[in-house]
Amino acid sequence: MAQQDRAIRTRRTILEAAASVFDDHGYDRATIAEVLERAGVTKGALYFHFASKEELALAVLEEHVVDIAVAPQKIKLQEFVDSGQVLAYRLRRDPMQRGAARLAVEQGSNRLDRKRSMLAWTQFVEMLLNEAKGRGEVLDSVVVRETAEMFVGAFAGLQTMSHALTNQADLCHRLAIFFEHTLPSIAVPAVLARLKLDPERGEKLDAELLGGRADGDAFLEAGNSLADAAS
Amino acid sequence: MAQQDRAIRTRRTILEAAASVFDDHGYDRATIAEVLERAGVTKGALYFHFASKEELALAVLEEHVVDIAVAPQKIKLQEFVDSGQVLAYRLRRDPMQRGAARLAVEQGSNRLDRKRSMLAWTQFVEMLLNEAKGRGEVLDSVVVRETAEMFVGAFAGLQTMSHALTNQADLCHRLAIFFEHTLPSIAVPAVLARLKLDPERGEKLDAELLGGRADGDAFLEAGNSLADAAS
Repeated sequence: MAQQDRAIRTRRTILEAAASVFDDHGYDRATIAEVLERAGVTKGALYFHFASKEELALAVLEEHVVDIAVAPQKIKLQEFVDSGQVLAYRLRRDPMQRGAARLAVEQGSNRLDRKRSMLAWTQFVEMLLNEAKGRGEVLDSVVVRETAEMFVGAFAGLQTMSHALTNQADLCHRLAIFFEHTLPSIAVPAVLARLKLDPERGEKLDAELLGGRADGDAFLEAGNSLADAAS
Repeated sequence: MAQQDRAIRTRRTILEAAASVFDDHGYDRATIAEVLERAGVTKGALYFHFASKEELALAVLEEHVVDIAVAPQKIKLQEFVDSGQVLAYRLRRDPMQRGAARLAVEQGSNRLDRKRSMLAWTQFVEMLLNEAKGRGEVLDSVVVRETAEMFVGAFAGLQTMSHALTNQADLCHRLAIFFEHTLPSIAVPAVLARLKLDPERGEKLDAELLGGRADGDAFLEAGNSLADAAS
């Protein structure tokens, strides 16, 4: 393995360990020592990639947004639904997503800028909705920015509630109910009738996305072993 | 003042101080020492009412639910909207509501049962929606329990987002947008057309509710002075 590949893998290992520590303890009580232990790397390796706990947290939050793009669909609004369902599914099992979600919703330290992750996700949703509107899929009454922010905000709360009640086991189901309530106010009737809203979509799409990645299995295994280590 | 009245007031003072400390620091970093300082009471007085930080937190969470009933309306769904808007408005300024909200959404300590407050609020909303359904205000397609949970979950996230972006200043506005998106899937058309959804309702109703209470002003002043002390 080339040196650069190794550095990328080490960085990923550290980030996943950090995410699982943030998921278990929150930002304030997370320690670099525990990240080192879970990642199985030296202090020098960690500080080569990240100067501080804050940098680790920001990098975890960054991954949260990067990882939710799904395959293009004929109906753009379907991509909006699907990216939400994939994220909801991953919050059940992917330590990176779980850690990022906890960082994003907890007030914790004032030094950590949680706005950035929410705004980045809002922009991503806004882009999808604008494209959908350009194709005539969205009702004229919709103010795209408002709808995008409403979705991101509501999602954050649905995952908080699902975490408290079922450790995220029912998040895909809760999200499907949210979509059933809101999409009639977003999609034009012809598009609404064709949207697939079943809560099992997240799992199916996640498998497809991982199958499409060269390193899909390795990534999944790394995620699972961290989840096992954390439990 | 009778001894019992004094005890009730002291209990309230301690609870409001505790709520403002939870709002500022979260559960884990909140200390009894800071609650004592803000409340201006002795250790003995505090421990007479509350045996531990956990008991304080549970009592604050309890207030969160008790405090959101609004005056009866001709349309029951209007009470559903109004109780949400009053809570959203109070989250801007009432330290008790702010502290309770932070306790409810943060994972924090595992010992604190956050489910209870979410479930109690869900039950309250479920009751309103069931009454509304009994009066023919709600669409047949609505599964009341699901809609109630969706509302409580989404609200938690809207307040998280509003807190991160504007310290709750735009929460009433965000909630109005949420209602605009969801009520067409909840209310029958004739009722929907008559619902008042403007984001200023919370402030107006809060003033009416406080005016209706004998101790309204005293309560508001106590709340404000704590908010000042905390800022």
